[in-house]
Amino acid sequence: MSKQSDITSIVVTKLKEIVPNQDFVALHEPLFRGNEWSYVKECLDTSWVSSVGKYVDLFERKLAEYTGTDYAIAVSNGTAALHAALIVAGVEAGDEVIMPTLSFVATANAAAYIGAVPHFADIEESTLGLDANKLDEHLARITEIRSDGCYNKNTGYRIKAVVPMHTFGHPVDLDPLVEICKHYKLVLVEDAAESMGSFYKGRHTGNWGLLSAVSFNGNKIVTTGGGGAILTNDASLAKQVKHLTTTAKVPHKWEFVHDRIGFNYRMPNLNAALGCAQLEQLPDFIEKKRAVAQVYQQAFAGIEGVVCFKETGFAQSNYWLNALLLHESHASCRDDILGQTNSQGIMTRPAWNPLHTLDMFVNCPSMDLSMAVSVCNRLINIPSSACLGDEYA
Amino acid sequence: MSKQSDITSIVVTKLKEIVPNQDFVALHEPLFRGNEWSYVKECLDTSWVSSVGKYVDLFERKLAEYTGTDYAIAVSNGTAALHAALIVAGVEAGDEVIMPTLSFVATANAAAYIGAVPHFADIEESTLGLDANKLDEHLARITEIRSDGCYNKNTGYRIKAVVPMHTFGHPVDLDPLVEICKHYKLVLVEDAAESMGSFYKGRHTGNWGLLSAVSFNGNKIVTTGGGGAILTNDASLAKQVKHLTTTAKVPHKWEFVHDRIGFNYRMPNLNAALGCAQLEQLPDFIEKKRAVAQVYQQAFAGIEGVVCFKETGFAQSNYWLNALLLHESHASCRDDILGQTNSQGIMTRPAWNPLHTLDMFVNCPSMDLSMAVSVCNRLINIPSSACLGDEYA
Repeated sequence: MSKQSDITSIVVTKLKEIVPNQDFVALHEPLFRGNEWSYVKECLDTSWVSSVGKYVDLFERKLAEYTGTDYAIAVSNGTAALHAALIVAGVEAGDEVIMPTLSFVATANAAAYIGAVPHFADIEESTLGLDANKLDEHLARITEIRSDGCYNKNTGYRIKAVVPMHTFGHPVDLDPLVEICKHYKLVLVEDAAESMGSFYKGRHTGNWGLLSAVSFNGNKIVTTGGGGAILTNDASLAKQVKHLTTTAKVPHKWEFVHDRIGFNYRMPNLNAALGCAQLEQLPDFIEKKRAVAQVYQQAFAGIEGVVCFKETGFAQSNYWLNALLLHESHASCRDDILGQTNSQGIMTRPAWNPLHTLDMFVNCPSMDLSMAVSVCNRLINIPSSACLGDEYA
Repeated sequence: MSKQSDITSIVVTKLKEIVPNQDFVALHEPLFRGNEWSYVKECLDTSWVSSVGKYVDLFERKLAEYTGTDYAIAVSNGTAALHAALIVAGVEAGDEVIMPTLSFVATANAAAYIGAVPHFADIEESTLGLDANKLDEHLARITEIRSDGCYNKNTGYRIKAVVPMHTFGHPVDLDPLVEICKHYKLVLVEDAAESMGSFYKGRHTGNWGLLSAVSFNGNKIVTTGGGGAILTNDASLAKQVKHLTTTAKVPHKWEFVHDRIGFNYRMPNLNAALGCAQLEQLPDFIEKKRAVAQVYQQAFAGIEGVVCFKETGFAQSNYWLNALLLHESHASCRDDILGQTNSQGIMTRPAWNPLHTLDMFVNCPSMDLSMAVSVCNRLINIPSSACLGDEYA
């Protein structure tokens, strides 16, 4: 095992060898090399920039087609997608929602918007996503299954949903989670914000949840500037999502009737136009991203004390964001590596602070979270833009 | 007074004379004749399309400059702007929020998102906005002012805020509302969604509320595709709004700490670029819109039983959306006029259904709403695009 100082300098040196020699290398830089100009300009030329226009419909159709889901509903961002998905999944105020503590804050916020309570679960190192075995044991211990659902015996509240997240684009092990949801009468909602282009056992992520949420933020593999979508294979839920995210307006030739508290979560046509052009290039982006991942994996293959995260057997990952995982004995090097790389213009980031440690969520229910805490302390995300793959793909 | 059938045919004939002879004339059509393509193209060429980029900052600066407010914070839409403004204004779950029943559903939804309750108030015919006198009498009757705020004696709940809305761009009479808010310990939040370019007593709307909400939806006088902004003259509130609408992330060189339940309400740079180009043309759009209004006013000036709404003495309106007001005795012609115009390709719309009549708000507290109900029954919005002013301005 290498010494602490060795690991820091080895990692920094390796990264400098791999990434381009330029002033600043971002974690993610979007690539606009397709029909972006032409589609966006058409929006301006025809004045269709807002919530109605052909690109929203086209983007939704293309999304459904690519992911193999029956329905896709475009919205303003991934947070909005999660919020709408949880509402339509039946999550209500006072319910608990199981989610990994290793996630972006939006996963927990979406539950909180409804007045529901995040219930944090641990992850497994092989997927960086929910640990199904550990979750099963936890639920067996703390829940009581009643005719109307699954109840947390400790808090007295209903547990309504499980929201696994495909961390950095890597598919979580979905099949055992589907089984758990069946057994405990829970609804599965996939947080697929990062996994456009990632497949689980040959099928696109987002097909296992009753509903799934995708993000097209500027840092994602395909972007609409800001945007998201809800995927589902259920016609009735798709209709509800569309209604809920478009102010719940009841169709009428001119009257303004809204039949529930709705949301203004529409994706503007301008942004959908960008999305259509981006989706066309997704296969190419994935190829480039996977090539970048392979370069990192090879570079760090022989080095003791650090690994570059690699997809597991059932997963075909989009490698949205590459991650180095330090051995536990080198966790204390994380901040040194972050400091040295960032100060030298190579953007690196730690994992998110675990959600259960954030002020507003510290009192939420949880299970043993030791793996997530361990991973957070020793994980470093490294530059992963598709353009880095230009020389490798 | 003209007969019912006369009024219908007079109105339809007049509208056909005024609007262009084409297959379809919209209520609002955006105009992109400035730097839209050049700014948007720059976003694509530099890859800055998302939540960070120079156009968001520039748009905020230009907005503050134009409206004469100290701070403007760009967000994803007008609903998000209202939601954030109400939170930062201190509205909490269980509070009541006074608003006109004549408004778009977003005004009430924004309160409902917080768990607050809309409390509906009546309007005056001369502004189509909140009737301050009637509100004052109502509050005198039903409220008790305590050290910690104003309480509704009927419901027991605190009334926290008053949210006047500048209907169709016409400024409401703000000064008496400011007095009422002072007297009753209420916070004033302006719903200025429709009033970009509208001035009250020589100063831009949005300067009277502690915070104000603006919209840049596709139908507004200037558009960002989808977008909104919060205006305020308070540095601390501006900072809170920015924090709240950008996931409440605490600045750090790399850590992901969020210190409250925040929202993903950012305006993407791509949309802000469009907004910057649109703002440059706002003075021209206003001129054109005012010219269109004058043509309508002159056309309907001599006709008994119908008037085209005109700004009052204290107001300089953007005339975002022109409205015909039928005399009460002709209210029954409204649907005939709507039917005939829309079937002939001239888009017209009634006012929104009063908010207190929508299912989810029927049990909300309210006062006598007879003027709003009367106006709703006899109001018709007519085509008001700036491009119609090309021949008049």
